[in-house]
Amino acid sequence: MDLRETFATNLRRLRNARGWSQDELALEAEISRSYLNQLEQGVYYVSIKVIGRLADKLEVEPDEFLKRTAKKVRTK
Amino acid sequence: MDLRETFATNLRRLRNARGWSQDELALEAEISRSYLNQLEQGVYYVSIKVIGRLADKLEVEPDEFLKRTAKKVRTK
Repeated sequence: MDLRETFATNLRRLRNARGWSQDELALEAEISRSYLNQLEQGVYYVSIKVIGRLADKLEVEPDEFLKRTAKKVRTK
Repeated sequence: MDLRETFATNLRRLRNARGWSQDELALEAEISRSYLNQLEQGVYYVSIKVIGRLADKLEVEPDEFLKRTAKKVRTK
């Protein structure tokens, strides 16, 4: 799975856990709602500058955004 | 601590754990040695595109790069 998709999934999950709409989070993190929406759809490779801001506002650790929850079993 | 610094510290640590020089990792990850060196000094906010590539080559999970190992005690 591409890391954009991992990030998008985690972002949606963490935003929902906080109980915020995209509008609310975009406002708090000072990014456009359109950009946030595209991030949640895995369109862009986000930079750690934005990850830091989102983590701060959502009150989670930054590494939460890159965790691959559904790990694939590797076949050698 | 700025997330650039967290990333830089983890990158140096993970590269050393793999036993690779900056030249070797830069070659493997297909980024310039100069850029890698600046990433290890916390100059740039890296994108998750590059994090994915580094994680792949260093054989670690992507979230390892954003872990804040030395957590500060928060004073309220």
